[in-house]
Parts: sequence; structure tokens; C-alpha cells
Amino acid sequence: MGLTRRQFLTRVGDAGGYSAAFIAMQGLGLMEARATEVPELMAAPASGHGTKVVILGGGISGLVAAYELRKLGYSVTVLEARNRPGGRNWTVRGGDKVTFTDGTTQTCTWGEGSYQNFGPARLPSAHTNILGYCHKLGVELQVEVNMTNSAFLQNDNANGGKPEMMRRVVNDTRGHVSQLLSKCVKTGALDQDLSSEDKDKMLSFLRVYGPLDLGGKYNGSERAGYSELPGAGDKAGTINPAIDLHTLLDERFWQGMMFDQQFDMQATMFQPVGGMDRIPYAFAKELGSIIKYECPVTEIRKTGAGVTITYMEKGASKQISADYCLNGLPLTQLKKIPNDLSAPYKQVIDATTYASAYKIAWESRRFWEQDQNIFGGLEFCNVGCSPIWFPSAKMFSPRGVLVSGYTDETNSPFSKLTMPQKFDESRKSIERLHPGFGKELEKPMYVTWGRIPYNEGSWIRGYGQPEHPVTTQPSAAGGSVNQGYETLCQPDGPIIFIGDHVSHIVAWQEGAALSGLRGVQLLTERVKAARLASPFATQGREAVAV
Amino acid sequence: MGLTRRQFLTRVGDAGGYSAAFIAMQGLGLMEARATEVPELMAAPASGHGTKVVILGGGISGLVAAYELRKLGYSVTVLEARNRPGGRNWTVRGGDKVTFTDGTTQTCTWGEGSYQNFGPARLPSAHTNILGYCHKLGVELQVEVNMTNSAFLQNDNANGGKPEMMRRVVNDTRGHVSQLLSKCVKTGALDQDLSSEDKDKMLSFLRVYGPLDLGGKYNGSERAGYSELPGAGDKAGTINPAIDLHTLLDERFWQGMMFDQQFDMQATMFQPVGGMDRIPYAFAKELGSIIKYECPVTEIRKTGAGVTITYMEKGASKQISADYCLNGLPLTQLKKIPNDLSAPYKQVIDATTYASAYKIAWESRRFWEQDQNIFGGLEFCNVGCSPIWFPSAKMFSPRGVLVSGYTDETNSPFSKLTMPQKFDESRKSIERLHPGFGKELEKPMYVTWGRIPYNEGSWIRGYGQPEHPVTTQPSAAGGSVNQGYETLCQPDGPIIFIGDHVSHIVAWQEGAALSGLRGVQLLTERVKAARLASPFATQGREAVAV
Repeated sequence: MGLTRRQFLTRVGDAGGYSAAFIAMQGLGLMEARATEVPELMAAPASGHGTKVVILGGGISGLVAAYELRKLGYSVTVLEARNRPGGRNWTVRGGDKVTFTDGTTQTCTWGEGSYQNFGPARLPSAHTNILGYCHKLGVELQVEVNMTNSAFLQNDNANGGKPEMMRRVVNDTRGHVSQLLSKCVKTGALDQDLSSEDKDKMLSFLRVYGPLDLGGKYNGSERAGYSELPGAGDKAGTINPAIDLHTLLDERFWQGMMFDQQFDMQATMFQPVGGMDRIPYAFAKELGSIIKYECPVTEIRKTGAGVTITYMEKGASKQISADYCLNGLPLTQLKKIPNDLSAPYKQVIDATTYASAYKIAWESRRFWEQDQNIFGGLEFCNVGCSPIWFPSAKMFSPRGVLVSGYTDETNSPFSKLTMPQKFDESRKSIERLHPGFGKELEKPMYVTWGRIPYNEGSWIRGYGQPEHPVTTQPSAAGGSVNQGYETLCQPDGPIIFIGDHVSHIVAWQEGAALSGLRGVQLLTERVKAARLASPFATQGREAVAV
Repeated sequence: MGLTRRQFLTRVGDAGGYSAAFIAMQGLGLMEARATEVPELMAAPASGHGTKVVILGGGISGLVAAYELRKLGYSVTVLEARNRPGGRNWTVRGGDKVTFTDGTTQTCTWGEGSYQNFGPARLPSAHTNILGYCHKLGVELQVEVNMTNSAFLQNDNANGGKPEMMRRVVNDTRGHVSQLLSKCVKTGALDQDLSSEDKDKMLSFLRVYGPLDLGGKYNGSERAGYSELPGAGDKAGTINPAIDLHTLLDERFWQGMMFDQQFDMQATMFQPVGGMDRIPYAFAKELGSIIKYECPVTEIRKTGAGVTITYMEKGASKQISADYCLNGLPLTQLKKIPNDLSAPYKQVIDATTYASAYKIAWESRRFWEQDQNIFGGLEFCNVGCSPIWFPSAKMFSPRGVLVSGYTDETNSPFSKLTMPQKFDESRKSIERLHPGFGKELEKPMYVTWGRIPYNEGSWIRGYGQPEHPVTTQPSAAGGSVNQGYETLCQPDGPIIFIGDHVSHIVAWQEGAALSGLRGVQLLTERVKAARLASPFATQGREAVAV
């Protein structure tokens, strides 16, 4: 679902995988559609008084959960391994350091105002929960331009590698499709499919859709742009000639052109002004000392009454006990931490696999804006680093940061290259799509999530299968595909899993936020149930509405 | 060209006219494509010293011309009838008055920060000249969201009037088209059109384009959105079922859905932060006392040496003489002003017709954002006021100003209604597309350009034909369609026409800016030629580089 939706993006540029992944997504999407609802968050104010919760990880899921639990009166502690909140929501600016698990360190030297979101970098308007938190917390948003018609598509293996503009590819493709279909309608090939009335309507429609002339031919279109723009006086403009169908098919241009039609990629999209990390920092400001930074978790134990978590702080091992634990740690980390999780969970966690998506970002003069009239948006090439992603921040300013390469590199030939070789590949993609401009790229930064401490993965790729499925889990549609996922969705005693990997919107902040809300809901229901079951427990808390 | 391109927009909502206008545009576009170039602006610094120019009208064309001529050292005066610069570039805010030619007056009572651009309201990224001036003059720009997939399309006459979301209409339409074409490819209906290899490629392509399943069927798509969104835990989401083809064809939904495919409407688009009039006010700040406000022109006379313009100022008739005149007045006004224009020009001007586009704008709680998740973009209905246009300014703030109705109302039944009836119609369109929200609309403002003093028209619809074509005009492709236009493109002695109506980008600021630049170019060439021809003239100006 979310996973394959994300793969859809990240496999763009991988000629073989794209359409297969896409069709898989469609299939899965329909297959997994179920009506089971997570109930709305309903818990009484102050119902958390006297209950302690420890939250592992200060990413979006942990921050959302802490924010909501605090409001309900719970005593909350967030243990965060890093010196910053946000997890993969990470914005790098001049002066920041990027250190890999092997110690390799890059220091960012970009100028004032330049930044890159190396994790999530856009907020679809359909992601109402995370947008709602932005609004609540005063995080200023601006439009993220996810598609611009002036962007280019390119394929090394066809057409001499010449890039073509999005508006030409999209509109000429539709024109040819319309012309062919118009012909079929006229020649009677669809007489069994369309009524006589619908045939007429279809022909009218195709004339606009193509657009086609009255004879049903596609003769190019102003939609595909101009080789010479219209102007004043006798400058009437010259429309681009139509790219022929054979070239369009041969180039497999459609691998990039359908990108912005995905639900999560459709306009209108947003980004926080100044960097995506404005979101976790806004949560952190609210939460204050609830978040304990530089406190990596080293042990997770169940006790009769709840959990005891061991963590490091300033070189010393410390412990915290709580009634419940919301566990937002990446499973890559969890599998390395000694824990008391039940066997089915351990089996799933041990067997999960993670992607290692990377981004390479460069500072540069904004040649794309100043010389090529491209403002925001993404571009795709079939070979090499792809996509290219232009900044929606500070358009019209002299310099900016672009991405050249944003893909899961796991097991790819690219992953075997040295960092300088990767930068060369990244620059080459700019040169493919924007000949002559590759040399303007400066100060590259490379983040690959598989090598980032405390993550070692960008998002979950596959859920392991438990040998003994959790018995409390009501049997779903019957398929075993998601049994690992479904196991993680169930609390393991006092431990409840949160994080985008416990959602159908993997790799998106919305999934993380919703998993945090769901974790809070499950927790409050247990607290309520426990109180109802135990008159003694209730007696000591008579002032608390349940 | 530009005219029909604009008509394309304004006729959306007019069921009969749309596809005809569109096809006309395509035809004209190809027909009028010519390679004749207006040369780049090339004139020596200070070459204007000693030459006086009077510019009629302080709209964008006049402002651009004044700005450029002043830089070249010309002595420039702009006569502007109103107390503000910008002409149709007009932003209305709380406290502003709108007065029609018959004296009808509306006073705007919108709150702080609310505004509406009643003239031009967007800047396509392809309009590099006007964007360049924004950049030069420090006009801050923000993205104008011209299309959002969450917007609605609606047709009273089909489907019980139920609105459908843009993402469903666009993606289900493509799905059905792809399925039909896939079938035709498979059944051999296109064997004469496609090689065996291209047939295979076409089928692969259509599987992604549709998207189609491996059997070539369109089964709906996540691109078309969800009836229930995916979430955390077991909330896998439910994809919208595909709208059937018959409904899509019957509803003529495509009348709105192709809107943002037009070249001038494609992403990325911009608007000035705070209102479109930031542009003319930025010019005005630069030009200072060069612009004379509240000075309507009453007479235009040629003299042996140039022109003498009579105008009113504070109740008194005044005159200004100049070597040249750049005439940016709307032709609706020019035809009423006594003048010395040559016969062919008068004939053309007298015969021109203008559109009267209107906009009705309302202040409201942002129900579209808060309750319907729509951020910016346009919506279309087939009957009644259309389109609806949501603000891209100050998204996420509590209240905003939306447009319901933006069309040429010339000779329409709508034009016969009273203003309160028009407001009723406008509110009804909101109710059609957003049932239950019509009642939230407040403080309507109605601007129809045909009734605005000093314009009396929104943009030119038709150019008259001169009985005696201007002989200095080199014969073009031979057609007579644009002879009126071509006449206006030629200087009439010392008088040079500027304005978007002397461009192929009618009704856009880019056309106005380019016409201003063209006017300056024609003028500087004449000045240079006159100096080269007259040694006496040159003697008196030996310090001036020509």
C-alpha cells in the first residue's frame, strides 16, 4: 500500500520495475480495501492522571503521541537518541554535520537560507492530520510545487538522449491516444462497447481531449508549448511540432509523466516555510523537558506492572519505569536492542527489511529558474540518478538547493560506488537533463538512510512472517501477505507499536501521525478497561473522570 | 490567438461554445504561426535626451514603456485618468469603492488582508517579461495554485447535479480511454497504424497510463482518490469506484477538466503577495511624478512636429505637446475621444468590439479549506456562474475571498439580471458545487468591465477591418482575418499603439508588457532614423550617443 506507493516513486528511473510496481500497487490497493475502522480518539480530559507512559523515539509518531497524552494528563517521557527531535524528518543547513554509521562525516557549507529536507519533504493536502498539527502548532506552510510543465524527461537509450519538456510529452501523448481512439470509434471497432449516442459523445469529447481537428487528427497543440513564444505586434508564436508517437513510446517517457497523478503526489501540496523540521521543533517547543535528548534505548523489559526501559544518558546507564510504552523505534534498531517482546513480534521484527533511500543535494545558482524557466517540480531520467527535484522555497532568489537522485539504492550498482563517484553520477544527471549546467553544482551532500545511525533504513520494505501468529488478532481477509504487519498492529502487553510502519501510509508523516494517534487510542482504552476492571485502582483516583 | 485563448477560459460553462472555441484556437494557432521577429530592444543609453514622449494610460503597457524610456533619457509623461496606476490590474480591498459608468456604487467592507484581483490575477511562469519586471522592482511573488485535484466539476443536467471531484473525473476518464484503446490494439483495429513492436509498447504504456490491469481493464485507481482514506493499523483505505464512461461523457465534465492544460494556465503560476496591484504600484514608485493621475485625455492631435494632447486636470483643460505618443488607451475610449488618427485606424477602432468579463467575489469562512480540503484552484459548473476560483493567498487563515463567476457576460441572459439577482446566481453556483455552504458567503462585490469607467470592456473580442489598409504594412500571409490587428500594429505618424490588444497575448499582463517594449523599440528606431536623416538635428545634440 503506502509502501508500494512510495516504491512507485522510488522505482521511477528503474526501467524494468516501474509499471510492474504500479500494477502491483493497483492490485494491492483494491485487495486490501477493508472497512474496519480505527475509532476516533475519545478519552476524557485528565483521564491520564497517575499513569506513566514512556515513548521510544522522538519522530513524528512519538511527538504526536506525547502531545496528545500530555493533554490527557498522562505523565509522559520521550526517549530520543539524537540531540534533535524529528527522526527522519531532518533538515540539513550550513554548519550541520552528516555522519554515517561507519564514521564518514560530511559538513554542510551551504549559505544562509539554503537547506534540504533529507527525509520527508512534502505534505499532500489530503494528509489532514499532519496539516492539522502544523496549523495547531503555528507552523507556517507554503505551496510545494510538485509538478511543473516546464520540467524535462529524458532517456539515454532513445532519441539521442535528448530531453523533452513535460508539457510536450504529456500533451502530445494524449493527442496521439485521442487520435487513435477517434479512428477506432469511426471505423466501428468499438461498436460493441459504445452506444451510437456515446460514440458521438466520445468523438466530441476526443476533439477537446486531444485536442483533435474536425477530421480527428492531432496536429500538435498550444498545450505542448511553443518553439517561439507569442508576443506583441507580429510575433504570433510558433507551436511546437508534435513529437511522433513512436518516439514517445520508445522513450518510455510515461515513466515520469504520470508521477503527479498519484494520489499522494497530487496538487495541492505544501511544505513548512524554512524546512520540514519546523514541525518536530514546534512539537518539541510544546513538549519541553518531556523529551530527553541523547538518550538511546539499550534495553526494553516487561515488568508485572508495565515496562522498564534502560537507556544511556551522558555516559551513564539509567532506567525508567512506566505503565505503558509506545514504541516508535525503527525495527532496524529494535532488533538490536535486548527486549522482552513476545516471540511472534521478535520473529516479525527480525525478518523485516528496510529500504535505503538516498538523496544527493547540491547548492547552485538557480539556473533552472533564471535560464530555463523551471520553478519547482520534479524531472525524471531513465538512467542514472533520478529524479531531479527543484526547490519550492525562496523561488527567484539567486541560489538554491536541488536534489539530483532520490531512490532506494539497496543492492543497486549505485550503492557500490564511492561517495565521489556518486556525486559524479548525480552531476551527470543534471548534465543529461540540463546540458551545460552540471558544472554549476557545488557543495554536494549525500544522505543515505541505511547508513544513518539510529535509523539504518529509510522505510520498511517487507514485513516478516511470525511462525505463531498473534492469537488476539481477528483473522482478516485471510491472506498471509500482511500477517507480519497485522502482528505489529497489536499491542504486546504494555508495549504498543507506533510509527509509519504501523500504517498504510508508509514513509509519510501522515502515517506516522496517525499511528501515534492510534497508539494513544489503544492505550487510553486499556487504561479505561483496567480501571473498570479494578475497583481498587479506581478508588485511588476518584477525582479523575474516566 | 491570445483572444481565443482567453475565450477558451471564459466560455467554459457555456456548453455550446467550448469545443468550437477550442478547435478554433488550435486552427488559428497553426495558421498564424509566422517567423517575423520584433527585434530585441536595442537603443543606446541616453539616446532619448531631448525627445519628449507622452504616454496615454498608466496600465501595464504604459508603465513598462515609461520605465524603459526614462532609462534611455527620454522626457516622459504618463496621463492616467484614474487616481491609481494599473488600469485593469486592479485589486479591491476593504474601504475601496467600485463605481460603474451609470453611477452605481459598491463599497467593499471586507476585513483586513482580504482582497480580490478583479482584473488579471495570475502570472504563468512562461510570461518571463512581466515576471522579470516583478523581480527587477522587488515585487514579492508566491505560487498561484491554478488547479487542485480536490476541486469539483458539476453539471446540472446530468447525474442529478451531483458534483464530482477533479481527481476522479480526470483519472477515470483516462482509465476508460486507455481501456478502450487497449482493446482496439488487441483486436487489430490499429494494425494499419501501429507496427507490431509499437503495438506491444502501446499496450505496456496503456497499463501505466490508464492504469489498466494485465487483462487491459480499468478497475479504478488510487489516482482517483478514496472514499475512505488509508490510515494506521487496519485502516487500509477504500478506493473510489470508477465513474462509468457513460456518465463522464454525459456530464461533459471534460469542459472543466482540461482547463489547466492550456499553455497559459499550466503550473507553475504566480501571483504577487498582497495583490496584483503590487506590480503597477512598484512601477509608479519608480516613475514618481512622471505619472499624472486624474488626467483623462480629451483630445489627440497630430502636429507637424509630433502630437498635442489635451486632458483635464482639476477641472481645467490642459495641453501637453510631445515628439511621440504611445497610445495605450482602450479602443472603447479612443473611439470617443476627438483625434487626428488616419482614416484606416479610425475605421478599425470604431469597429472593434470588447468583451465585458465580470467577476463576483465574496468574503467567507474558508469552508473549502477547513471542511473540504480544497486549497486554491478552480472549479467549473456547466450552468450558472462559473468558474469558482479559490484564493492562493493566505491559505489556512480563517477567512478568504473566493470568486463565483468569471465570464464574458456580453449579450448573455445573465447580463440582463439586476445586481442582487446576479449575486443570487453566484451564490447558487457555490451551493451547486458545495451544498450547504452557499449561506456562508458574505459581502459580495461585482465588477463587470464593460461598466467600469475608462475601460468599458475587459479585453478586445474583435478587430474591425479598415476599408483602406495601411500601405506601409508588408503584406502578411494574405488572410484578411487580422488586417485590423495589423493596422493597429503600425505607427500612425508619431502615434504608436500599445496595450495587450496590440499583442498575441490578449488579456494578459505579458501581452501588455511586450506591447510596451515593442512601442519603445519602434519609437527609438524612429528617433535614431530621424537623427541620421537630419544633420541639423544631430548638431544640436552632439553630446548624445545615438
